[in-house]
Amino acid sequence: MSQYSPAPEWQVEQWFNTDGPLSVATLRGKVVVLHAFQMLCPGCVSHGVPQAERLHRLLKGEDVVVVGLHTVFEHHAAMTPVALQVFLHEYRVTHPVGVDMPGPRSPVPATMRLYGFEGTPSLVLIDREGRIRHQALGGIDDLAVGLMVGRLLEE
Amino acid sequence: MSQYSPAPEWQVEQWFNTDGPLSVATLRGKVVVLHAFQMLCPGCVSHGVPQAERLHRLLKGEDVVVVGLHTVFEHHAAMTPVALQVFLHEYRVTHPVGVDMPGPRSPVPATMRLYGFEGTPSLVLIDREGRIRHQALGGIDDLAVGLMVGRLLEE
Amino acid sequence: MSQYSPAPEWQVEQWFNTDGPLSVATLRGKVVVLHAFQMLCPGCVSHGVPQAERLHRLLKGEDVVVVGLHTVFEHHAAMTPVALQVFLHEYRVTHPVGVDMPGPRSPVPATMRLYGFEGTPSLVLIDREGRIRHQALGGIDDLAVGLMVGRLLEE
Amino acid sequence: MSQYSPAPEWQVEQWFNTDGPLSVATLRGKVVVLHAFQMLCPGCVSHGVPQAERLHRLLKGEDVVVVGLHTVFEHHAAMTPVALQVFLHEYRVTHPVGVDMPGPRSPVPATMRLYGFEGTPSLVLIDREGRIRHQALGGIDDLAVGLMVGRLLEE
Repeated sequence: MSQYSPAPEWQVEQWFNTDGPLSVATLRGKVVVLHAFQMLCPGCVSHGVPQAERLHRLLKGEDVVVVGLHTVFEHHAAMTPVALQVFLHEYRVTHPVGVDMPGPRSPVPATMRLYGFEGTPSLVLIDREGRIRHQALGGIDDLAVGLMVGRLLEE
Repeated sequence: MSQYSPAPEWQVEQWFNTDGPLSVATLRGKVVVLHAFQMLCPGCVSHGVPQAERLHRLLKGEDVVVVGLHTVFEHHAAMTPVALQVFLHEYRVTHPVGVDMPGPRSPVPATMRLYGFEGTPSLVLIDREGRIRHQALGGIDDLAVGLMVGRLLEE
Repeated sequence: MSQYSPAPEWQVEQWFNTDGPLSVATLRGKVVVLHAFQMLCPGCVSHGVPQAERLHRLLKGEDVVVVGLHTVFEHHAAMTPVALQVFLHEYRVTHPVGVDMPGPRSPVPATMRLYGFEGTPSLVLIDREGRIRHQALGGIDDLAVGLMVGRLLEE
Repeated sequence: MSQYSPAPEWQVEQWFNTDGPLSVATLRGKVVVLHAFQMLCPGCVSHGVPQAERLHRLLKGEDVVVVGLHTVFEHHAAMTPVALQVFLHEYRVTHPVGVDMPGPRSPVPATMRLYGFEGTPSLVLIDREGRIRHQALGGIDDLAVGLMVGRLLEE
């Protein structure tokens, strides 16, 4: 019996930078770096998003997939998918990004609720078995992220 | 006869962080730092806007007024005044910011055309006589900006 | 037959921040991060040394040993062991640092010649088998270093 | 009667990066930026020295002289003039730097005592009349330094 929780499946209404939808199920066998962000969250823009993009470019061709998740839980009128598309273009984001499904009766979107994110940026590392091995709110420095992803790749 | 051009009057459709509209005419007698930006322009977000805000906080009470101008010339649907208001809130911008008046038959807004800005960020220094003393596209480092504003204050 | 070279043994005249001398042989079984530096080399001071120290603090208790090597190949009169000791104190360096043995008939010290370092900073990663897995001149970013060390730890 | 103190004359045993000795007296008529540092003081190396050098390069040809003062008050054996010369070379320092005269019966050198510096880095701004207009311990940000120097230039 595993001590680690299975990563909940993502609820996404729209994808950018990918030919088709991505899912936890179809990425089984790979290490997944999931970063939740909002395009007008300063800590996401200065730290989380560029870190994810650098990881994506550094690990292309390896068994790692970096996925962004736009988890808008406030100021919905300003952070629409139309605005997100401009943001991704202007910030040269080339890794896949999904738009978290708006909640039916909550400002908090669906995947954010499933994972229990307390805010943005949040980082989740999912192992080859589809299990959550790390989840944390806030910026994590490059050295620590590199170490964790490197270990998951080789275990 | 002066070698310096008078600063064109600003065409603004909406102001934030000020009780009433600001103008070149009413600020005569003060040094004005005008910075033109777009909320989804990476160089503006990482350099121009925080520099303007630091200048504003450092010089409060002095004869200097720092004014932001949201000169949207691309991606208009993503950078609306509603979105700008969220941006100013999230980035803790407390200096006055005006929304440049949309052009009638051009994507380039009115004040941007009057000043001939080639893009964002752009910085303009206006002296106590209402004349343009410096205008440049792109990020200018803190030391150089400080020197120029300091000189204008004492001349 | 391995494609990797065995790490040459270190020739050190004096150690700091360790109870006894360290060697490639006695660290067999652990991952070793060896960084060669000079205390008056700007790239070492701004990047290589603080990166090594952060790695040391992050991985304390893990099977990783971070070792600095003071490879003075120029300006020997200015970068003596006495000066190095002050440097380590002022820069709060707590990981072990050895002073590379001066060459008998060369300005280049002994270990630097054995490894073929072309300058400072240089970084070497040695695996649990005592083999060189990575060696490079110049600064390497935190994400890449973290990934490499993480992989060596789990393989 | 002035509220400002006259800047004490510098006691220097050796100069670098200048054809002849500099003094407060002979620089009368110019704005002087004096920064006191030690070559193994981390805050000096990362902030004070590069800021002084940028100021020097930015203001060449203007009525400003940037002067470094090596005020060694600890670890004298490690921070000799020979070591300082290497430091200035490696860090591409091109502005004039004087070595503060060692105290006869004190570890604190002569000019440091005359100015009452509490440590390094320290920054002093001297106006065209040879008076101290600003003196502070620790790093001061570029914007604030630029503003102060700009004002002194024009008053």
